[in-house]
Amino acid sequence: DSEKVLDDISHRRYNPLRGSWILVSPHRTKRPWKGQEESPAKEELPVYDPNCYLCPGNKRAQGDSNPQYEKPFIFVNDYSAVKEVQADYSTPDQDGGLANRLLRAEPVTGKCYVVTFSPAHNRTLADMSAAEILPIVETWTSIYTAHLSPNSPLAKVAPTTTLPPHGHTDVTTPNAQYKYMQIFENKGAAMGCSNPHPHGQIWTVTGMPEEPALEMEQMLKYRKEQGGVHMLEEYAILEASTQERVVYENSAFLVVCPWWATWPFETMIIAKTHKRALVDFNQQDRELLADAISVLTNKYDALFDTSFPYSMGIHQAPLEGTDDEIEASYFHMHFYPPLLRSATVRKFLVGYELLAEAQRDITPEQAADRLRKL
Amino acid sequence: DSEKVLDDISHRRYNPLRGSWILVSPHRTKRPWKGQEESPAKEELPVYDPNCYLCPGNKRAQGDSNPQYEKPFIFVNDYSAVKEVQADYSTPDQDGGLANRLLRAEPVTGKCYVVTFSPAHNRTLADMSAAEILPIVETWTSIYTAHLSPNSPLAKVAPTTTLPPHGHTDVTTPNAQYKYMQIFENKGAAMGCSNPHPHGQIWTVTGMPEEPALEMEQMLKYRKEQGGVHMLEEYAILEASTQERVVYENSAFLVVCPWWATWPFETMIIAKTHKRALVDFNQQDRELLADAISVLTNKYDALFDTSFPYSMGIHQAPLEGTDDEIEASYFHMHFYPPLLRSATVRKFLVGYELLAEAQRDITPEQAADRLRKL
Ligand SMILES: O=P(O)(O)O[C@H]1O[C@H](CO)[C@@H](O)[C@H](O)[C@H]1O
Ligand SMILES: O=P(O)(O)O[C@H]1O[C@H](CO)[C@@H](O)[C@H](O)[C@H]1O
Repeated sequence: DSEKVLDDISHRRYNPLRGSWILVSPHRTKRPWKGQEESPAKEELPVYDPNCYLCPGNKRAQGDSNPQYEKPFIFVNDYSAVKEVQADYSTPDQDGGLANRLLRAEPVTGKCYVVTFSPAHNRTLADMSAAEILPIVETWTSIYTAHLSPNSPLAKVAPTTTLPPHGHTDVTTPNAQYKYMQIFENKGAAMGCSNPHPHGQIWTVTGMPEEPALEMEQMLKYRKEQGGVHMLEEYAILEASTQERVVYENSAFLVVCPWWATWPFETMIIAKTHKRALVDFNQQDRELLADAISVLTNKYDALFDTSFPYSMGIHQAPLEGTDDEIEASYFHMHFYPPLLRSATVRKFLVGYELLAEAQRDITPEQAADRLRKL
Repeated sequence: DSEKVLDDISHRRYNPLRGSWILVSPHRTKRPWKGQEESPAKEELPVYDPNCYLCPGNKRAQGDSNPQYEKPFIFVNDYSAVKEVQADYSTPDQDGGLANRLLRAEPVTGKCYVVTFSPAHNRTLADMSAAEILPIVETWTSIYTAHLSPNSPLAKVAPTTTLPPHGHTDVTTPNAQYKYMQIFENKGAAMGCSNPHPHGQIWTVTGMPEEPALEMEQMLKYRKEQGGVHMLEEYAILEASTQERVVYENSAFLVVCPWWATWPFETMIIAKTHKRALVDFNQQDRELLADAISVLTNKYDALFDTSFPYSMGIHQAPLEGTDDEIEASYFHMHFYPPLLRSATVRKFLVGYELLAEAQRDITPEQAADRLRKL
């Protein structure tokens, strides 16, 4: 079939979610690798590490002590990239507008959190069952709910429960109405993670960040051009029908190596039917999302028999937006893992990729096939 | 002044060349680093390495032997990401157009070259004088000239010299008229370079790649809105007047940490007056470009007293384009170095950066100040 032809030729694929292209060079994997090797994660970590600032009971950088938590524990990041309160700034008007055009800046405020996934220092999502991941999904839902604009149509459906008992008091109503909440995890030293204790982050900011803004623009355009259908709902149906790029599915979610994947084993978890955000899920949906995350991360670890590094995160409705924007939002998760050939050989997105265009060496079909079979 | 305020607050800066934003969190450098450390380049390399496929006289992967070259040596990449000849492909029309919308692909052909910078295995641009870098600039100019569309207005000004004597016969007229030539270098293991022998690459492709396409769109728009002026010419004048982000300048080029830099010590080399491409340079311009590259790479090595990794490359006019596109093109080079704090601690552009928005921890003014003083 058509995709097999693509196994042997260089081509570009179009990413309709970002409106951008990526270069695919499948024959290039034959290239021998003599460059940098990653050190795979040390296997033997203790359940509790007295020097870890995330373990229960330990002291953190700014002096606070963690409670003896048993469920996901959430607190304000001690080194937040954005703060709730800071000095004002506006671009100075000078040089007859030249600086206004070329030296533009706008202030950003917001709130950053850390969420531990487990009290055990030596676990990762990949070793956790769906039942163990469920409280994390619940915590994400609660914190998203706590930051939703009261004017959002989503505020009406948001679960009335605020933070579950395993939450921490740091999550109070924020000072201001923020625009977007980015929930994400950096896993593994190769993805800039500096502490193996299983945890994710949540950055909440005043402006709509670049990536969700790009996706929003594309999704709005698609809905308009295609008479109201959702791009990702159509995409999920298309992928489920051919199965060529499907890694796993349950009744609510599809795990797929997208047609336009950039990273070698990049995947998306896509809601099969339209969900705007975590608050649109019922209890079964949350369980099925936990199941999809559990199966996918487990497959990742099995692929190269290593604790598989990645950055992952949730794209969903902004905390505040027009009715059109909220309605066009479509819950999905991206997983961006760097490894290409083994536990130690990664893909570098460098010269050509940074200066000209993203480039990959294996097809998404080949990647999906390997992950599916595990 | 205004930029000092920005040393203490989180803000976004606008990149007018890409039409995108970046988050700046200057206070975040206080964060201690316990994550992955890079291994600095081993200092002691031999002048000649019998196992290096780039050293003069040695055998390459596909069996060819390198000549005993003394000046930059150029040959077709043995593992090219694109090829001149391959099978045809067009997106199959199926599923009532759904695949046409969501599974789009287009074939890419082209030609990839490798250019050695020196016969010596153990040198880098940072240890080379402007006079030693000049032949590299000449080689880039020649190969660009050899691939120019005869219909381009640039073909009229292109130097009549074809490849200098130090060129290699592999650079023949290509099979087809390609659209864009990306000249770049990945330096150092941290930037995916697998051989320390000083070399760069040249990928020439049929479609206009994402990054130069984005820049072209923005530059055309700026020219139209501002009555025919060039964005980068205005930007160079503005930066030269305040000197706040200037690292170095000579009479033809400005080296600057751009207002919108993403990587901690990212720089651009910008032509001070409008040059569309390498072929617009005279002999003195080429010498001054070699001088700017020499000074900048030398400062980079001095910054953390290490062989400083980076990816760098040239953005200039496409090989083929409308008269408007060629005229709006503006020669500049980007340097993207990953190091943040020392020879071993880099900046990771991971979770938030991949999923939401690029983020940096020091201001470009702070970076420029350090580089300027070296
Ligand atoms: O071509 P090289 O040097 O073997 O490979 C390097 O540069 C290429 C172009 O930026 C990248 O695609 C590769 O991931 C990187 O390792
Ligand atoms: O916040 P952390 O885990 O210390 O830091 C990590 O994630 C951040 C968000 O993606 C990045 O900006 C940092 O470069 C990375 O090292």
